[in-house]
Amino acid sequence: MQNKVQPRILPGFMELLPEDQIAFNKMYDTIRKVYEQYGFLPLDTPTIELSEVLLAKAGGETEKQIYRFEKGDNDLSLRFDLTVPLARYVAQHYPDLPFPFKRYQMSKVFRGERPQKGRFREFYQCDIDVIGSDTLDLVYDAEMPAIIYRLFKELDFGSFTIRMNNRKVLNGFFTELGYADKIGDILRTIDKLEKIGRDAVISELTEYGVQAADTERILSFLAITGTNDEILAGLSAAGVSNETYLEGVAELNKVVDYLRKFGVEESAFRIDLTIARGLDYYTGTVYETMLNDYPSMGSVCSGGRYDNLTGYYTDQKLPGIGISIGLTRLFYQLRENGLIKKAGSIAKCIVIPMGEDDMGTAVSVAAGLRGQGIPTDVYYQQKGMKQKMKYAARLGIPYATIIGESERLAGTVMLKNMETGEQEAVAVSELAAKMR
Amino acid sequence: MQNKVQPRILPGFMELLPEDQIAFNKMYDTIRKVYEQYGFLPLDTPTIELSEVLLAKAGGETEKQIYRFEKGDNDLSLRFDLTVPLARYVAQHYPDLPFPFKRYQMSKVFRGERPQKGRFREFYQCDIDVIGSDTLDLVYDAEMPAIIYRLFKELDFGSFTIRMNNRKVLNGFFTELGYADKIGDILRTIDKLEKIGRDAVISELTEYGVQAADTERILSFLAITGTNDEILAGLSAAGVSNETYLEGVAELNKVVDYLRKFGVEESAFRIDLTIARGLDYYTGTVYETMLNDYPSMGSVCSGGRYDNLTGYYTDQKLPGIGISIGLTRLFYQLRENGLIKKAGSIAKCIVIPMGEDDMGTAVSVAAGLRGQGIPTDVYYQQKGMKQKMKYAARLGIPYATIIGESERLAGTVMLKNMETGEQEAVAVSELAAKMR
Repeated sequence: MQNKVQPRILPGFMELLPEDQIAFNKMYDTIRKVYEQYGFLPLDTPTIELSEVLLAKAGGETEKQIYRFEKGDNDLSLRFDLTVPLARYVAQHYPDLPFPFKRYQMSKVFRGERPQKGRFREFYQCDIDVIGSDTLDLVYDAEMPAIIYRLFKELDFGSFTIRMNNRKVLNGFFTELGYADKIGDILRTIDKLEKIGRDAVISELTEYGVQAADTERILSFLAITGTNDEILAGLSAAGVSNETYLEGVAELNKVVDYLRKFGVEESAFRIDLTIARGLDYYTGTVYETMLNDYPSMGSVCSGGRYDNLTGYYTDQKLPGIGISIGLTRLFYQLRENGLIKKAGSIAKCIVIPMGEDDMGTAVSVAAGLRGQGIPTDVYYQQKGMKQKMKYAARLGIPYATIIGESERLAGTVMLKNMETGEQEAVAVSELAAKMR
Repeated sequence: MQNKVQPRILPGFMELLPEDQIAFNKMYDTIRKVYEQYGFLPLDTPTIELSEVLLAKAGGETEKQIYRFEKGDNDLSLRFDLTVPLARYVAQHYPDLPFPFKRYQMSKVFRGERPQKGRFREFYQCDIDVIGSDTLDLVYDAEMPAIIYRLFKELDFGSFTIRMNNRKVLNGFFTELGYADKIGDILRTIDKLEKIGRDAVISELTEYGVQAADTERILSFLAITGTNDEILAGLSAAGVSNETYLEGVAELNKVVDYLRKFGVEESAFRIDLTIARGLDYYTGTVYETMLNDYPSMGSVCSGGRYDNLTGYYTDQKLPGIGISIGLTRLFYQLRENGLIKKAGSIAKCIVIPMGEDDMGTAVSVAAGLRGQGIPTDVYYQQKGMKQKMKYAARLGIPYATIIGESERLAGTVMLKNMETGEQEAVAVSELAAKMR
């Protein structure tokens, strides 16, 4: 007898049992439906790209995480996000695309991180982006949170808050203080405010050469809170005259104004000056989304505006705005918090023929139900009735349709409600209606 | 100015423009819907597996094509089909699965082949399999072609033929002739009958040590044609007494009988004794599916029964049956043959505000349409009317809803049928109905 290989997968990869997979797919389908309802076009770029192309911009931590390998003469990499492939795609197919180009892509990306709880090496990203040719109107900055709003209403995981900021506000403020060359470091430090606390932030800022007086000004600036209108008023009254700053404040005002026109509830979005988003390329409005009852999950949907998507591939100026959901991680977190509702089976009915003579009837009854849009399984194994019903119960199918000789001869079936256990003889013609 | 990287992808990878992607997704969704209608459960295994696990069985040509690489201490491979991951999954999760286990998986697989027309290195496979624990009834052998039948009716690419054979018939026949040890070679040679012709097959068979008299018997056996009933009669009258053979003939008879009970048109399936399928693991019923008007495409949906899915991982006996569609290749071939119908846009309406004051109305009209299930895009760029209409036309959206000051004040919109060019003022409340 040959040696058996132990069947297993790598740590850091998610693999679900069917019941969870159904719940996962339901989330996936909901997100896709909302993206399509807003006019986004589907895209499906290759999983494997040329390293030279994919890594044109990457460096540091990202590059270390890449699954990169050679095959034949080619230096290849698995995509680590959907943004770089989008940039490559738009640069490559520019003449063939309508602009603004609105696309969604919901695909797996790959990062060879050290495995840890809730971090995955292979995970779904669900992205939308709008790419303008040369210009992209500010209204799109409001459309994004409007879509997040619709999305999380549909996903139905309780109340949530879309936090919003504008990088120009931060950039302009820090430029005025004379820290233009340290914006990156300062923003990264401030990004950790919630995580490491005020004192640690101050000491880190001091390390970066921020003067004590400025540190205070920075922290009191970031302490501007209140309603959206109060924050907007606070920003205007902050005594900052830097032009980028004023532009950012004007943009925030307009985006808030549009969001109200878009019918987004005031309680669902909030200006938050501490939001910077780590990535270098955001240049305007930025977003994070928090589930109010589960702040420890962190942001479940983030994104923002960038000035130039495709700088590494083309001189064409292509500003854009986008958001991303890390679906695999989100699903994992929701499940850990008991927030994944049982999705139930896809099949609404299982047809169970009692004996071999009932097969033909079973098949035609199943075909009839499918024709009326009711996904229907049939149990064809010749086992005992007990085992047949166990299969039906295990799959969580709500209705069983049992067909034996007496039913067959009477042109009826025995319809069993698997939840209540009730059963009744039903004419085949009335079966679909009974189940609805 | 920095050097630009030329945006491009590798040869042998399919990447579509949005319009084609919509058509591709439509096929994908149709296949998924049919699979779900028949009670198959979704599965999504990792793209990356441990080489030791994934390649437990592989060898020869397959192994050469694998994308295999190291990351950290791990020897990894990209899946090259969905069958080996299924075997691994079933062996790994056996106690948690319902049997018969019916699953579908529609995911990308990877093969580093030399690129050639119509062959892809990364492509979608759309698989269903039914796995029995210890036994799996023969009725499932008939359910598979019944699903193929439903599937290709829904896909609507014209008439098709499901060719069917049974490996026991072939194996038994050749065992009786004394070529039990050469079945593999003989079947592979016969598999090429259509491709290389009768003479080349004879000379190849002779090379394998088949006697001249037997060659004739083999070829006349394979020349048993006619209606399904005529072939079944011919098989019974062929004078073969080998037990496996007789079992195969009995199975074919039963499967044909069931297929008729399943309501599959007689013209849609045909016993074809030349069908063997290359893979070693098929042991019973095998299938191929031909589009009648496009025989050069080869089989567009193939599969069959195997005795033991998971021999490399477990002693548990798990017989199964499955079919597979290579969707990427199929889409490519259909497009080459002009068989991909324009799928049209996903959005059914584009709302176009004339000026900035019309934004609010535009957004609320769009929200209303989406709420009624009509995917709706909005054009937010402040461009001229001509450019706005060009965008709508380019996307192929059937209706444009134009909102200017006069419409806004009157509570109406201008609804334009983009195909006919006709336009009329419509009350907002009647808009959805007008478009249906």
